[in-house]
Amino acid sequence: MAKSNQWKELTVSTPIQEYPILIGRGLLHDKSVLQPFVQGRQILIVSNERIAPLYLSLVQKIFKDYSCDVLILPDGEQFKNQDSLNQIYNILIHNHHHRDTTLIALGGGVIGDMVGFAAATYQRGVNFIQIPTSLLAQVDASVGGKTAINHPLAKNMIGSFYQPVAVVIDIDTLKTLPEREFRAGLAEVIKYGLLVGGEFWLSLIQLSQQNINANSLELANIIERCCAIKADFVAQDEREKGIRAHLNLGHTFAHALEAMTKYERWLHGEAVGIGLYCAALLSCQLGNISEADLNLIDQVLSGFKIPRRIPQDIDLEVLMRFMQHDKKILNHHLRFVVMKQIGVAEVNAHITDERLRVVLHTAVEGDN
Amino acid sequence: MAKSNQWKELTVSTPIQEYPILIGRGLLHDKSVLQPFVQGRQILIVSNERIAPLYLSLVQKIFKDYSCDVLILPDGEQFKNQDSLNQIYNILIHNHHHRDTTLIALGGGVIGDMVGFAAATYQRGVNFIQIPTSLLAQVDASVGGKTAINHPLAKNMIGSFYQPVAVVIDIDTLKTLPEREFRAGLAEVIKYGLLVGGEFWLSLIQLSQQNINANSLELANIIERCCAIKADFVAQDEREKGIRAHLNLGHTFAHALEAMTKYERWLHGEAVGIGLYCAALLSCQLGNISEADLNLIDQVLSGFKIPRRIPQDIDLEVLMRFMQHDKKILNHHLRFVVMKQIGVAEVNAHITDERLRVVLHTAVEGDN
Repeated sequence: MAKSNQWKELTVSTPIQEYPILIGRGLLHDKSVLQPFVQGRQILIVSNERIAPLYLSLVQKIFKDYSCDVLILPDGEQFKNQDSLNQIYNILIHNHHHRDTTLIALGGGVIGDMVGFAAATYQRGVNFIQIPTSLLAQVDASVGGKTAINHPLAKNMIGSFYQPVAVVIDIDTLKTLPEREFRAGLAEVIKYGLLVGGEFWLSLIQLSQQNINANSLELANIIERCCAIKADFVAQDEREKGIRAHLNLGHTFAHALEAMTKYERWLHGEAVGIGLYCAALLSCQLGNISEADLNLIDQVLSGFKIPRRIPQDIDLEVLMRFMQHDKKILNHHLRFVVMKQIGVAEVNAHITDERLRVVLHTAVEGDN
Repeated sequence: MAKSNQWKELTVSTPIQEYPILIGRGLLHDKSVLQPFVQGRQILIVSNERIAPLYLSLVQKIFKDYSCDVLILPDGEQFKNQDSLNQIYNILIHNHHHRDTTLIALGGGVIGDMVGFAAATYQRGVNFIQIPTSLLAQVDASVGGKTAINHPLAKNMIGSFYQPVAVVIDIDTLKTLPEREFRAGLAEVIKYGLLVGGEFWLSLIQLSQQNINANSLELANIIERCCAIKADFVAQDEREKGIRAHLNLGHTFAHALEAMTKYERWLHGEAVGIGLYCAALLSCQLGNISEADLNLIDQVLSGFKIPRRIPQDIDLEVLMRFMQHDKKILNHHLRFVVMKQIGVAEVNAHITDERLRVVLHTAVEGDN
């Protein structure tokens, strides 16, 4: 069993809190990593049916001298709902968890979002630790304190900003992540590359030519860089009043694609892949980035084997209505994050329907 | 219609926020009071079946040029639950309320707690305004950002700390408050008197000899003083990690009395009245306050016509078990707020069952 002799550590700072992100291999084998973040003697580990058989026993072993409850939920976005949340509350209340209890989220973004929200609201807030086990959760969902459950009518409608006491990223957990999910996670990595540009973007261009996988040595640096970028946005704007919105690059497209296909067709990261290509097309048509840059983005997405085109069977008018629906609920105006250049994003609230229609048509599979 | 030409204004400060408490008569007749606290054009007013017929039209008139939704819930603590919360979420989502919407809580503590929690969690947090219409809510519940709903197994188990953008206290709303509720609210006023002592306590001793009611001129000063005391505790300790717990003087007794009688026998303030007498007895038995002080506290409670004795039919052993239950859920140890002297409180986690039993027996009706 590999013992982690070292790990990388980043700090996330918000106006009222600071907490570390630890990144390394074998961290779940080392009790000295997790234990310091637990104050009391009570713990509730929440995981899902796919992850629990793989890693639950490791975490339980670390806390064998604690009063440790476990809740295993079904795997999937459709279970990120009020019913699962109530299951968490019920176990906490029935087992008399005090205000100094610690919740541990062991799983991907769904588990993290839901456990985070339970921690934010149980007895008006208890500690929680994120142990993200998917690439998407490691580079994105577990950092920044966005917690939520879905409402039957819209995703992430009920939630809060609530930061964990620590994020512990054991990269080795990616070895059991399905290839498709690994690729989907890389879409968010590319998003960060486009947001900061420079050397990180250049390194991604290079990497996209290689066959990156869970064993790749480069992975630790990539994850660290993504977390650092996200932590920087969060430190500037925890509540997404401004610049944090740039992290939604590609996501207005992605959310509509996911919603119109009932979240069954694509993994979130796959929809983000298509969304990033659409955002790049839009940025190019606005005259912000060159055709050469657009092609480069396309090649990187392609090299990482991430979906990047809208399939021909998608009705673009329906897609646009779904984007409008997003607008109605979330904002007065349909706001797109576009690139001014690679490495510089901005919010544009003046995209006409005609321009949007052209972008979507251009992004359809086989047209280019 | 009285126009409010002036009002008292206090500021509540927390680490990330400042907001005003406005206190006066006729404030609901003056749109210049409320309007400045609404950013967008969308509003949801939540009230209950008793308060809405009295004051809803006043608030609606102020916002007649806004897109203003209304939700009227049944009146009572038993409706402070997940179902009512979902009704608030549903109307927000169905009517496409954006992130810049404003929720208005028009009612007592139940409405305030629930609307506050809805505001804390809808789209990860939107603005809300407290318009407390009961004395208890005006001096206590509406200030300090504690929001919550009840769980079938325990009160206020699901909630968060979330501050309003403003608390607007129109004292004239107390004119329609049932006499019994008015008296119950005075129990929390006495609590503040015991916590700070000095002139405020002396003024309460004096007032308890008079027949205070909703028209009393002294009321504005009393409410202002109570809000100022609470704001001071909140500013020092928003999340109740320490000194804010002193605000629970009498409440360990009160919560157990309420719980064992299923919240049907007493109003919260009435149970607090009994709890304050028990806390005073305990403080006296610990040798902290004199018999004379104990008798004075008893006289003030009596003068304000607030319940202060445990009825003979209450099984004290059952009461103690309910106090233990509170302990199990909330803390490792049963912690009592006691007075070191009038005006100085402290938390005592070393009260033995024997001492507690003596206190409860002494507090029983007719024994003294």
